[in-house]
Amino acid sequence: MTETIEPEVEPNGQDEYYGLPAELVREIADAIDEERFDHAIELAEPLHAADFADLLEALAPDHRIALVTVMGRRVNPEALASLEEAVRDQIVAQMPISNLAAAIAELDTDDAAYILAPLDQDTQQLVLAGVPSEEREFLTEALSYPEGTAGRLMQRDYVAVPQFWTVGHVIDFLRQAEDLPDDFYEIFIVDPRHRPVGRATLSRLVRTRRPVVVGNIMDSAPRLIPVDMEQEEIAYNFEHYDLASAGVVDPTGRLIGVITHDDVVDVIREEAEEDIMRLGGVQEGDLYLAALGTARSRFTWLLINLFTAILASLTIGLFSDTIEQVVALAILMPIVASMGGNAGTQALTVAVRAIATRELTRANAVRIVWKEVIVGGVNGVAFAVLAGLVAGLWFADPVLGVVIGAAMIVNLLVAAFSGVGIPLMLERFGVDPAIAAGVLLTTVTDVVGFFVFLWLAKIALL
Amino acid sequence: MTETIEPEVEPNGQDEYYGLPAELVREIADAIDEERFDHAIELAEPLHAADFADLLEALAPDHRIALVTVMGRRVNPEALASLEEAVRDQIVAQMPISNLAAAIAELDTDDAAYILAPLDQDTQQLVLAGVPSEEREFLTEALSYPEGTAGRLMQRDYVAVPQFWTVGHVIDFLRQAEDLPDDFYEIFIVDPRHRPVGRATLSRLVRTRRPVVVGNIMDSAPRLIPVDMEQEEIAYNFEHYDLASAGVVDPTGRLIGVITHDDVVDVIREEAEEDIMRLGGVQEGDLYLAALGTARSRFTWLLINLFTAILASLTIGLFSDTIEQVVALAILMPIVASMGGNAGTQALTVAVRAIATRELTRANAVRIVWKEVIVGGVNGVAFAVLAGLVAGLWFADPVLGVVIGAAMIVNLLVAAFSGVGIPLMLERFGVDPAIAAGVLLTTVTDVVGFFVFLWLAKIALL
Repeated sequence: MTETIEPEVEPNGQDEYYGLPAELVREIADAIDEERFDHAIELAEPLHAADFADLLEALAPDHRIALVTVMGRRVNPEALASLEEAVRDQIVAQMPISNLAAAIAELDTDDAAYILAPLDQDTQQLVLAGVPSEEREFLTEALSYPEGTAGRLMQRDYVAVPQFWTVGHVIDFLRQAEDLPDDFYEIFIVDPRHRPVGRATLSRLVRTRRPVVVGNIMDSAPRLIPVDMEQEEIAYNFEHYDLASAGVVDPTGRLIGVITHDDVVDVIREEAEEDIMRLGGVQEGDLYLAALGTARSRFTWLLINLFTAILASLTIGLFSDTIEQVVALAILMPIVASMGGNAGTQALTVAVRAIATRELTRANAVRIVWKEVIVGGVNGVAFAVLAGLVAGLWFADPVLGVVIGAAMIVNLLVAAFSGVGIPLMLERFGVDPAIAAGVLLTTVTDVVGFFVFLWLAKIALL
Repeated sequence: MTETIEPEVEPNGQDEYYGLPAELVREIADAIDEERFDHAIELAEPLHAADFADLLEALAPDHRIALVTVMGRRVNPEALASLEEAVRDQIVAQMPISNLAAAIAELDTDDAAYILAPLDQDTQQLVLAGVPSEEREFLTEALSYPEGTAGRLMQRDYVAVPQFWTVGHVIDFLRQAEDLPDDFYEIFIVDPRHRPVGRATLSRLVRTRRPVVVGNIMDSAPRLIPVDMEQEEIAYNFEHYDLASAGVVDPTGRLIGVITHDDVVDVIREEAEEDIMRLGGVQEGDLYLAALGTARSRFTWLLINLFTAILASLTIGLFSDTIEQVVALAILMPIVASMGGNAGTQALTVAVRAIATRELTRANAVRIVWKEVIVGGVNGVAFAVLAGLVAGLWFADPVLGVVIGAAMIVNLLVAAFSGVGIPLMLERFGVDPAIAAGVLLTTVTDVVGFFVFLWLAKIALL
């Protein structure tokens, strides 16, 4: 029967498009609570691996572990490979060695490596001892590559044939071969030393007549991925050149594996996720940590923020006499700082993402900085007028209006310049702009905002 | 020759992995400046379509238009389809109708629709008049679907065969057929009314012997995409179920097109991008707008922020007498507000992303809200002690330390609750949490921070 993915309309009128129904999660959680484990298993086992992974992520940490424990080997290994890192770590940590070995033996190398990665060396060895020898060798090799490189993402099964084979010969070979990948999109044409000299997509292959030699239909400049390439760059190449798969070569140029589109989709999602989380001052996987772990992981960021807030307070402290005489300054000063922070964050957000996606480079940096300064100037003048009118009317003091207006222009210019300049500078020094740029920026806009406003007020009003 | 993608090591020691060398962009920009257009074309024309698109994006707006104008029909149509929306709009707006028609006739329907989309109805008709009739019909239909739905993303060329055909018959058909897509990953098996009853991946097809009937090897429950499905949901299905392509069906269940992984990769990138930009209070494509356009598009967000900043100021104004007597309060109050804003933003970032990726749903909302409140409480106590010590020692006043500590705990609890509660509430009301949650949150943490701190100070100190 054909299964069309149908949006269900929920009672509240919202579409609940995706995956797992909330009711099912609740029913399973209740069953675990009441120790009706058979019922929980009955509901969970038929789920697609990706949906089962979602189920584990949606459950509370103790429910997750209880369910995996009672299910034992009935847990689909593919589901383990689909888990978020934080949840994977929790679950793998408490699975029996023999169950881990059984799961790993069933998976592609890249998925198996993902599951083994969080374990310490000794435990890895114990698990590997329970895995068939060829698979063990591939896995040991995969784990020898750093996380986030092609060596970890690739699978080891692929199709490679010599250049002089005909299409008919290749097809007959595929019809008989055992150890083929489940799904593949291209075959590689290799020289006698197993170095790729070309590739042919399956759609090209099936459209070509049997007597044709593959050497004559191959794409002789395939994009190959060196085994040590970083995942960001792999993703860039897949996205940029619309690849469904790409061969991976070792430093001598030999073909050793293949990376497919689905691995890359995960990387693209992860990379964007990482930027969002870092801009917000949180770690990835935060959602899945227990409360105390989350509190600890967020503490550092808040501590840094406390220091910068004290820096801003010290700036205000320089003008305590002035504030004592004109209390309106204390009332108005957060406006200047807050507008600077927001305008700067706008520029910063654009700059951080543009650096990550290589849209902002040294080729256009000067142009973009200038553009931002003009934007800061234009909006600076606009909000100088608005804030000046509000302040002047509120405290019936036109000079106060002029002071806040002037401070606004200065702070929005500084914010614009810093918003794009700070990320560019951090990147030059090899620091990820997404992590540190925000806190540096608001320090600048707070200190400058308070200082310029209070200093101008001191000169103009006293 | 085999082309391995080699990371080049730059003189400054940083890896410059990606795409287009900065020097090339500069050289082309200089050539345009000096009106040596032949030289610019000579450098630009051999680029891969995706790299040529990057070149246009990296150039200043007037350089972009100059280059496209002098290149005329030598611009690769595929490159137009790879442009960011803002740049596409600029370039398409000034291309001659005949060149647009020529470009569109060469492209897949989805790419052609992407280029036509920004034009007004009349101009679209003029362009379509220059396109061959079958293509015109497909395009008119594609444009009749809303942007961001399957109807826009799908291409119209696909392979569909009846259930009783043998593998040999299918392969012979593919070897003779003309109008096939460049690259495809599966064939569809349809009933006499062209409704899909199954699909077979090409890797399955080439591994099966010629006499086998496709009905016997097909996956009889293919995941099909309704033509009106939103792109977020399409992306979710591709990512979740690791699809390379999927058929698109009209409301009667007839197969009308196919969506491929490369379209979906773009959607995933876009969706994450949209969230980052909205959280930062900017529009997508901001980088490519001219300065005045950018200033205008950011103005609204800053205006909203001005109102909320004034609200915070009004809160402070309630306590102007208190501040007049204890000026230390004016110095310290930004600390409480700033810590609340940052702690709230942490919770909010996690919540907004988790809602977007459907990791935070009604199934686990209560648990996550509780978790955040505990996190807020734990860090609230920690920073109450730290800030209390700093303030108490700085102004040699232990009561002031207690006041700031108490205000810190309250504000961090409120921040935690609001950080996850506000996005959930917005989502319930059908508003994208990424757009509005940040400004609502900081309004709450500023107002509560200032109010609680100053009010407690008034009670305790006066």
